[in-house]
Amino acid sequence: MSENLTMHTDKYQINMMYAHWVQGSQNEQAVFEVYFRKLPFGNGYAVFAGLERVVRYMQSLRFGDEEIAFLREQEEGYTEAFLDALREFRFTGQLDAVPEGTVVFANEPLLRVTARIFEAQLIETAILNFVNYQTLIATKASRIKQVAGEDGLLEFGTRRAQEADAAVWGARAAYLAGFHATSNLRAGMLFGIPTKGTHAHAWVQGHDSEEEAFRKYAEALPDQVTLLVDTYDTLRSGVPNAIRIGKLLEKQGKRMNGIRLDSGDLAYLSQEARRMMDEAGLHYAGIVASNDLDEGIIFSLKGQGAKIDVWGVGTQLITSGDQPSLGGVYKLVAREKDGELIPVIKISGNPEKVTTPGRKDIYRIVNRETGIAEGDYLTLAEEGPLNTEEPLRLFDPIHHYIQKVVQRYDALPLLTAVFRDGALVYELPTLEEARSYHRGQLALFWPQVLRKTNPAEYRVNLSDAAWELKMAMIAEHTI
Amino acid sequence: MSENLTMHTDKYQINMMYAHWVQGSQNEQAVFEVYFRKLPFGNGYAVFAGLERVVRYMQSLRFGDEEIAFLREQEEGYTEAFLDALREFRFTGQLDAVPEGTVVFANEPLLRVTARIFEAQLIETAILNFVNYQTLIATKASRIKQVAGEDGLLEFGTRRAQEADAAVWGARAAYLAGFHATSNLRAGMLFGIPTKGTHAHAWVQGHDSEEEAFRKYAEALPDQVTLLVDTYDTLRSGVPNAIRIGKLLEKQGKRMNGIRLDSGDLAYLSQEARRMMDEAGLHYAGIVASNDLDEGIIFSLKGQGAKIDVWGVGTQLITSGDQPSLGGVYKLVAREKDGELIPVIKISGNPEKVTTPGRKDIYRIVNRETGIAEGDYLTLAEEGPLNTEEPLRLFDPIHHYIQKVVQRYDALPLLTAVFRDGALVYELPTLEEARSYHRGQLALFWPQVLRKTNPAEYRVNLSDAAWELKMAMIAEHTI
Repeated sequence: MSENLTMHTDKYQINMMYAHWVQGSQNEQAVFEVYFRKLPFGNGYAVFAGLERVVRYMQSLRFGDEEIAFLREQEEGYTEAFLDALREFRFTGQLDAVPEGTVVFANEPLLRVTARIFEAQLIETAILNFVNYQTLIATKASRIKQVAGEDGLLEFGTRRAQEADAAVWGARAAYLAGFHATSNLRAGMLFGIPTKGTHAHAWVQGHDSEEEAFRKYAEALPDQVTLLVDTYDTLRSGVPNAIRIGKLLEKQGKRMNGIRLDSGDLAYLSQEARRMMDEAGLHYAGIVASNDLDEGIIFSLKGQGAKIDVWGVGTQLITSGDQPSLGGVYKLVAREKDGELIPVIKISGNPEKVTTPGRKDIYRIVNRETGIAEGDYLTLAEEGPLNTEEPLRLFDPIHHYIQKVVQRYDALPLLTAVFRDGALVYELPTLEEARSYHRGQLALFWPQVLRKTNPAEYRVNLSDAAWELKMAMIAEHTI
Repeated sequence: MSENLTMHTDKYQINMMYAHWVQGSQNEQAVFEVYFRKLPFGNGYAVFAGLERVVRYMQSLRFGDEEIAFLREQEEGYTEAFLDALREFRFTGQLDAVPEGTVVFANEPLLRVTARIFEAQLIETAILNFVNYQTLIATKASRIKQVAGEDGLLEFGTRRAQEADAAVWGARAAYLAGFHATSNLRAGMLFGIPTKGTHAHAWVQGHDSEEEAFRKYAEALPDQVTLLVDTYDTLRSGVPNAIRIGKLLEKQGKRMNGIRLDSGDLAYLSQEARRMMDEAGLHYAGIVASNDLDEGIIFSLKGQGAKIDVWGVGTQLITSGDQPSLGGVYKLVAREKDGELIPVIKISGNPEKVTTPGRKDIYRIVNRETGIAEGDYLTLAEEGPLNTEEPLRLFDPIHHYIQKVVQRYDALPLLTAVFRDGALVYELPTLEEARSYHRGQLALFWPQVLRKTNPAEYRVNLSDAAWELKMAMIAEHTI
């Protein structure tokens, strides 16, 4: 299967490129911004992910022979001259983006593309596909991390993931947001994520008795013994057999890692198993739990005093079970006319869907006394850097009568230059660096913003100039 | 990024392979069956998909240098002799499967692997990943198809799909189940699916007026004119401008395809747009609708008399929005002991989760008078082919007191030989053949089984021998 992702796009992008090319407008500059309109899961924040994938994709864009031959056969009847133009296609524009692991909010540009319309149009679909999924999973993983605290978190979802790419990029997003390991070996190999695994029910079924199965596993992997105890009867068979193996290992001077529970009442079973293992002197043996877990169930189990040390989270994380898509969009905010960039707008009957025109920058406004972020602030790029010596009035872009003034603050720019004239100017961080950067990001926010249920709202504000431009353009387009 | 999917597996598979290898049991034969326990969406049936992907994957399994080097570094400390055994790894076993496009039900084997435990264990994760996703999307697409009838159906979901593989394999599953085209060009190129595309809001925003944008698009692609009419105001601006272009095209002896509605009240807007286009003499121009559609919304819009000819379905289809995972499992049903295959079971407190032991075949019992399927029938493989001259007693495997007797019937075997001793013995159908086979499958069922809401239950029954074996093994394992 071809690994060239140049055709990982919607046909209408090629049709628009063709129409621009026919009309001679293909070299006009355009500015597109990627953002989502609503935080997923009712969460108070999202965790941006997908940039590394976007960068690799943009570097490898090429229309090869196979792609050209395919396009030649389409009913649109693209001309040979156009197909020749595609053969020459390279990304030669500008990309700005927030770094992976940044805590982000609705209605702020996460990526900003400034390029020939011919180039900017092609890449929309793939950018949204990568960023929507990876940001969604990183955010879901972060919610689980908020609930699990210092407990171990394992990503176990591959068999239920939506095909192979989702398994590895989802595992990476989960690790970025604080998970500790994945079961997926390919994700481990590609990204350096630690990998973990125990054994399945089939191992137990494949032997004459559960005890024999446990013993043989412990003989083969004596330093990695975590035994799955629910194949027949957890408390009457599984845990007692696991304890026997634990004692056997002690005689060899070894310690088992512990047991895994994969069904039944995890609160009760974990408490009983803990008691039984403690009574046998296996205080050090841990308990891993799995079985359709999510942040709600983990929160509930911890509230019931479940004795679980490590959570294996599969289906609900890797598919983002309660909301399997993030509605990120890629919207034109400015275009070239007569050699100048002019702002553009899209009107909608729904106020949240009216775009904010103009090429924009974002700043995170951090209170110098508390070290905590007061809000994000969008400016028009042409306004230049913020003068932080002046007080700043923050107001909400939908309910603009809601405002506050901040006095002593730092304004941290969130967008970073990634491509300049098609050249990569950004040093991609390692995954460990991004994971550590993400931890630091969380420290900028009050816990009230980060909590799972009914979080406090963190505002994304517009500068006066951005607000006035938007109002003027809405008035202009209202018939 | 490596396209070798050999590591697209859970680490515990490698750990179990290693433990078998250490214990010398790696060559014992094992039989695994893939099935799901519950139909998704409350639907009355599912549409099997994923086999082509499974076949390609199994043919290309290879542990190369990169894979071996990665495994050598793992904390498990796999020995060099084991890593050498992996280098030699090939699939040498048997695979049986139902063909893609088969209408299937809960608790029947969709794939059956008979192989050395060393091989059968490795492939579990990838098989489930492929089959769970593709079957889920084919089933979701089939529900939409049931509602849409003869209307056009376009798959538009790439930007919201869970990464790149989901976009193309999801597009393929949708086409298999009766969709007519996809917007994803890579899916078109890889699988020969027809591709469709119009233009985006950005095309309109990128011009000084909507009318100019429409005109320039029609000049460039005069035979492919479907105009997106909701950038500013659908009925006051978009539709009137589209009609002007339609009349212009008529003067050139051409006909526009139609318009696309992407927001607002699709029932009302489509009726008004239809009336306006009809009054202008554009009776032939069609209406495409999109905007977070699913089978429920399409059903509702058709009930309201919406004038929509073609449905563009994106997010809700490609992510299977209301249930983003299918819980397919891969369970050991028999294993070699002393040179013989013996059945195995997994017990659970939940009756539906107790496995049905033994290597099984499936037959579809079709009434010779009506041509309609009466139920599916699972036998132990060693029972041999059914004698259809004798009446057949069908009983439900959970509520076994529910039964019926069929007299004049055909018994169609559903499982087909795919690999024999590692060699592919199955000629993969083309996608068009599979799509056509799927249409034929639907004709075997009463409409009551196929309807979207509260479908009639179609039973999967056990033979007497399979039932008696299961009862005996449950009794044996009850402590």
